[in-house]
Formats: sequence, structure tokens, C-alpha cells
Amino acid sequence: MNLPSCQLFEGFSDGHCACFLEFIEDMACKKGDWLFKEGDTADNLFCIKNGAVELLTSLDDRVELPITILRTEGNFFGTSALIPPYTYSLSARAFQDTTLAVINRDKLMDRINQDPELGYIIMSNLAKTFLDRLKETRQEIKIHFKSLIKVMQY
Amino acid sequence: MNLPSCQLFEGFSDGHCACFLEFIEDMACKKGDWLFKEGDTADNLFCIKNGAVELLTSLDDRVELPITILRTEGNFFGTSALIPPYTYSLSARAFQDTTLAVINRDKLMDRINQDPELGYIIMSNLAKTFLDRLKETRQEIKIHFKSLIKVMQY
Repeated sequence: MNLPSCQLFEGFSDGHCACFLEFIEDMACKKGDWLFKEGDTADNLFCIKNGAVELLTSLDDRVELPITILRTEGNFFGTSALIPPYTYSLSARAFQDTTLAVINRDKLMDRINQDPELGYIIMSNLAKTFLDRLKETRQEIKIHFKSLIKVMQY
Repeated sequence: MNLPSCQLFEGFSDGHCACFLEFIEDMACKKGDWLFKEGDTADNLFCIKNGAVELLTSLDDRVELPITILRTEGNFFGTSALIPPYTYSLSARAFQDTTLAVINRDKLMDRINQDPELGYIIMSNLAKTFLDRLKETRQEIKIHFKSLIKVMQY
């Protein structure tokens, strides 16, 4: 088994890759399967090997707001597993039949405690991912405000 | 001089605090001073010692969209200085007369290269900060959608 190509693993040495392979497990899921729900305890981080996963949030009991669909090998989600309070902030559902690499938080954290450099690389990659998502989300808000301004001008 | 109380420094040992003090510099600015503009190269990270700083983005040439006002000692901004491509994603302006602790990226990165554990702590704190901001920003989008649904229902 090879380590999936993934932004979170960028900058890994061969040694880091080898130790990661020890605690990654594959998981197959069917279209429509829930992987986790918003608010669940976040024990695992997931990386797409093939297939597609939808991330979404609930507006209320009846309405779901889709956030994104991850379709590319190496896309990862469930990153709340690495950040206190370790609670998923979105829900995840298989958008089609999908194979995932599952990374257990406890095993990863044990490894990071032994090798802070591994932790530094992962957390740097994670911070970059969050900043990119934050920029995208702000961009959406800008679009909302621009629409609002247009409506108010007419 | 003491290290300002700041979420980014949480989990620091006394040794980490001492080495940080070596490359933090104080900077005074007047109400209305620009600290940086969106798109500028991000060379420095800033931490509020006293005063207040407004973060904002441009909707177009004429309209500014305020994102937040940081008013509390230890609030920090300019975090793009720690993440490639090292470009500020928002603009920052002193909201009143303000004193800042300025942390130079190159000096910090030199130190992290010598001490990956320091890097792990900072990047973990940074990832947590970004995730918190991402959740807040998604919450704003939820509010926009809820308003939109209400408008469409009437």
C-alpha cells in the first residue's frame, strides 16, 4: 500500500510515510452512507482514495446546506480530529461508492509526541488548508454582499 | 518585557517564551494608520498589546467590507506571514492609537528550524485559530441563507 497523495502529507520524509502507513486503514462505503454528523466526536481523519464525499451543514431540522463535494484522490476531511475540542464541524456523506484511507487520531498523536517535526509538518499543512478554505468562504460572503448592494441600488 | 498573553503562544515552555522575546519588537501606531493592505507580502505577524485594530477587505474600489475589530490584548493578526504564499489576505488599520508586538517571520522561521517542537505548538495554535474563524464565517453564510429562504417563503 502506498500513502495516498494528499496535501496533508506534503513535505513528508520517506520515514514519515512509512510510519504513517502503519496506522492508516482502508474503508469502503456505499453512496449515501453517513461518515459522521456535525457535532460528533472527531476520532478519525479521512482521505479519499477513490469516489466522492459531500460535506454539508444543517440550516435547520429540514434544510441541508451543501458546503462542497470532494472528488479528487488525496482530498481530505474530518480535520477537526486534529484540533480541540475534537468535534466535527460539518457532516460527511458518501456522494458515490467511495474508498477512504482512515487515520486514527490517537495513533497519530502518539506518533507526533515522539516526533515533533512530523507534527510541525502536518499542522503547517493543516493551517494552510484552513486558511485556503477561509479565503474561499470569505469570497462567498463578498459575493453575497455584492448582490445585496446591487439589489439596494435598484 | 513579558511575552503578551496570546492564543498563539499557548503551551509554550519558559524556554520558548524567552527565545520569543529576543525577536519581538514593540510598535506604536496612530488611529487610522494602515498596518498592511490585502495582497501585500506578509513579513510580520502582529499581536495587540493595547488599543484596537480593524481587519477589512475591499468589495471593489469604493466599498470596504469590515471583517472584525480586534480589541483585546493578545489578539493577533497577519497570520498569513506563517503560511505560503505569505500574502496578507485582509487589510489591517489601527482603529484607535495602538501598541503592537511585531514578530518577524524570517527570525521566527529560523528558530522553528532549530526547534520543531516550537513549530508544532505554533502551527497547532494557528490551525485552531483558523478553524475557529472558518466556523464563524460559515455561521455568517448560514445566516445569509436563512434570510434568503425567509424572503423566498413570503
